[in-house]
Amino acid sequence: VNAADKVTSLRAKLRGIVGDSGLIDDERAAPMLAEPRGLFHGRALAIVQPASVDEVSAVMRACWEADVPMVPQGGNTGLVGGAIASEAGNAVVISTARLNRIRALDAANDTMIAEAGCILAHLQEAASAADRLFPLSLGAEGSCQIGGNLSANAGGILTLRYGNARDLVLGLEAVLPDGRVWNGLNGLRKNNTGYDLKHLFIGAEGTLGIVTAAVLKLFPKPVATATALVGLESVESALALLGRARAASDDRLSAYELMPRRGLEFAVAHAGAVDPLPRPHGWYVLLELQTANAEFAPAPVLENLLEAALAERLVEDAAIAASEAQRAAFWRIREGLVEAQKAEGGSIKHDIAVPVSSVPAFIAEASAAVAARLPGVRPVPFGHMADGNIHFNLSQPVGMDRAAFLALWDEMNETVHAVALRHGGSISAEHGIGRLKVAGLEAMKSATELDLMRAVKRAIDPKGLMNPGKVLRA
Amino acid sequence: VNAADKVTSLRAKLRGIVGDSGLIDDERAAPMLAEPRGLFHGRALAIVQPASVDEVSAVMRACWEADVPMVPQGGNTGLVGGAIASEAGNAVVISTARLNRIRALDAANDTMIAEAGCILAHLQEAASAADRLFPLSLGAEGSCQIGGNLSANAGGILTLRYGNARDLVLGLEAVLPDGRVWNGLNGLRKNNTGYDLKHLFIGAEGTLGIVTAAVLKLFPKPVATATALVGLESVESALALLGRARAASDDRLSAYELMPRRGLEFAVAHAGAVDPLPRPHGWYVLLELQTANAEFAPAPVLENLLEAALAERLVEDAAIAASEAQRAAFWRIREGLVEAQKAEGGSIKHDIAVPVSSVPAFIAEASAAVAARLPGVRPVPFGHMADGNIHFNLSQPVGMDRAAFLALWDEMNETVHAVALRHGGSISAEHGIGRLKVAGLEAMKSATELDLMRAVKRAIDPKGLMNPGKVLRA
Repeated sequence: VNAADKVTSLRAKLRGIVGDSGLIDDERAAPMLAEPRGLFHGRALAIVQPASVDEVSAVMRACWEADVPMVPQGGNTGLVGGAIASEAGNAVVISTARLNRIRALDAANDTMIAEAGCILAHLQEAASAADRLFPLSLGAEGSCQIGGNLSANAGGILTLRYGNARDLVLGLEAVLPDGRVWNGLNGLRKNNTGYDLKHLFIGAEGTLGIVTAAVLKLFPKPVATATALVGLESVESALALLGRARAASDDRLSAYELMPRRGLEFAVAHAGAVDPLPRPHGWYVLLELQTANAEFAPAPVLENLLEAALAERLVEDAAIAASEAQRAAFWRIREGLVEAQKAEGGSIKHDIAVPVSSVPAFIAEASAAVAARLPGVRPVPFGHMADGNIHFNLSQPVGMDRAAFLALWDEMNETVHAVALRHGGSISAEHGIGRLKVAGLEAMKSATELDLMRAVKRAIDPKGLMNPGKVLRA
Repeated sequence: VNAADKVTSLRAKLRGIVGDSGLIDDERAAPMLAEPRGLFHGRALAIVQPASVDEVSAVMRACWEADVPMVPQGGNTGLVGGAIASEAGNAVVISTARLNRIRALDAANDTMIAEAGCILAHLQEAASAADRLFPLSLGAEGSCQIGGNLSANAGGILTLRYGNARDLVLGLEAVLPDGRVWNGLNGLRKNNTGYDLKHLFIGAEGTLGIVTAAVLKLFPKPVATATALVGLESVESALALLGRARAASDDRLSAYELMPRRGLEFAVAHAGAVDPLPRPHGWYVLLELQTANAEFAPAPVLENLLEAALAERLVEDAAIAASEAQRAAFWRIREGLVEAQKAEGGSIKHDIAVPVSSVPAFIAEASAAVAARLPGVRPVPFGHMADGNIHFNLSQPVGMDRAAFLALWDEMNETVHAVALRHGGSISAEHGIGRLKVAGLEAMKSATELDLMRAVKRAIDPKGLMNPGKVLRA
């Protein structure tokens, strides 16, 4: 049998499993083979959309038997190319989009069972309709899928209070490379019966199997919110305020987002944001506190916290949102900052984590290091300070050629990553490794840790068919 | 070289690594070879207490090269025989007791780095001295070691708010079977760089390597507490109250312990407890709410919650502790209940978890099932209801022969486990598998899950030297 015949035979087999409507051959295929920002373009033997776990299982068994690589794909909103097939064109892309049922919602157990293809925003709505909160929340929530969120261990805005995606999972269902279904879908808060396999598949970016469903944790729904925009002189002040805010809020901060003056200026200039404070400040924190019982009134707590901090000059100024509209206006600064960077020319991005206590030193040292390499570069370090997660983004010097700036991507990455690693940090806090950061992973991990990862990979995917070239070198 | 010579040579090598004081040959050896309740007695080639990670590494490399099994041991307080060498006497017991330094405490990062041999209560004290809380809390905290707690993924009282032991870990250090040290000691709240190896070693009960240190999460220290003892007609009522209490407390319940009338009566009769309520009730809940900021006053919230529940007859009666002494008296009932069971003759124990929503049905059905097998048997189902974790303990029928009752241990286990599994439950919520529940694990897991576990075991411990016969059959 020659190679072309094998492909024809596999495609026929796959069509038999998923039906005509489950084999994507039309104009929908192109975006499924392209990284959203155009970083990678792949090819595929076939793109399939199974409609059930049984179909996922049959598709994977067929690929396994034919020794054909598989590339799982959710909403294709990832930022590291984890869901994109390689240029070799020898793989089958398996989309979870049609696995989109909420199988059950048990309000008394504070859980729901969601299939991998459920859109994150739909899960938030389903929880809300049951008077609960599903707290995973991130920019792509309108199109990303929970299976992808779990495979990438997504982070987002609310992690400081509710944890990362993996912390929101009680049970998991995954299909192994050979098509066997592992049903670990328990709704138990305690279950010490052997190795915790769910934590292996979560964050594995589809390199060990395909997550098909999960039991997700729900929480009491917030009913009262207090939001402040705080102006500070330094990142050190923002760190000191964080410690007090954690205690004052009884650890119920739902946001603590750091922004530099430059970011606010970008958002005002290009994204319709308004600066609510009369004078400029070096740094800003968007601080939010939510409670599920209005008796625990969050506004006075925030007022007392900020009043004391103002009296001690830990904080230079602060505005507390007096209405939902004002709250939205504060958030417009934070959200606008990201899109506004585009209007300022090329930007080179980083997804750094350091210990929270090292955030001030990291920002100072990384800013100095990139400026030494490229005078005039404009760092815009912002993000989830309470998680130590700083998106250390760089806007190009004013007037520099955009392409010349972007050509420095790898060099700038190396410069910034070196500072992060010196502080015991990570080069990928929440975006994962995918294809983009495979070399970075190798550079940051010890030989022992890489050996352990490879041993786990071989144990669960002995043929190396699952998402090859992602996370670990193929 | 004959077998005896090999043993002599290995012992000499080990003595060279840990020194005379690190080789336990005296009266301290016997308790290290015995399960605390006398369930298992083992023998060992040697018992060593390395004083550093380097010594652990050298000891393990020596055992690995000699193909000698290793049995890690912390405080030896586990309840499933996980730290006890087998009767074969062919293993080296490696105690972590001398690895007992707190390497660092970073209040601004809310973390501390503790070595495996640190006593849990000492870690609680160190956190408290830094105005923080380390929330792992369980009966054995005065003698158990954090390495054992992590290896067993310990639970305890506060898990409903802070999670199980694994949820309190940011980074881990472990020595692999061949003596290589894996340093995963980061203090990062977000770090998506490959497989999450720490979650493999946590809960593996020493079958994949030896945990030597961990970066542990700290939390704001509670400053205000409200405690109530609530009398209810049924477990169903306790479930309904739990949902309301989670929302009313904004998910800051620090205890929600269920107890049956029989348990309270035992505690009053044998453990010096006092019933604070004037009339008897079928069931009791010990409910506690703590906050780190006194502005969030917990007592009025508890009062409002219970007042409304009384008005609707969801609750029959309730007492709120008016002093620390009264709070201690309420806890005396919960803690006394366990020891009081001894005075009532033999008891057969279970460590069940079910979905929280299934707790009422589980207790009803399991009670009926054991009564059908043994009329007069006295179930005392109590425990961490908010985690779905019920210690379904059975006291012997009044007047029955103790030994005859205890002879029914396996049969009662099977009866109760069958009910738990029917509800999607677990036969070991927080105690682990160790040696005691290996057969139970095999019975409850699918072939696919057992295959996955064995594949992971082989990948990391290819010679099968780590704690053989624990968790998985050797």
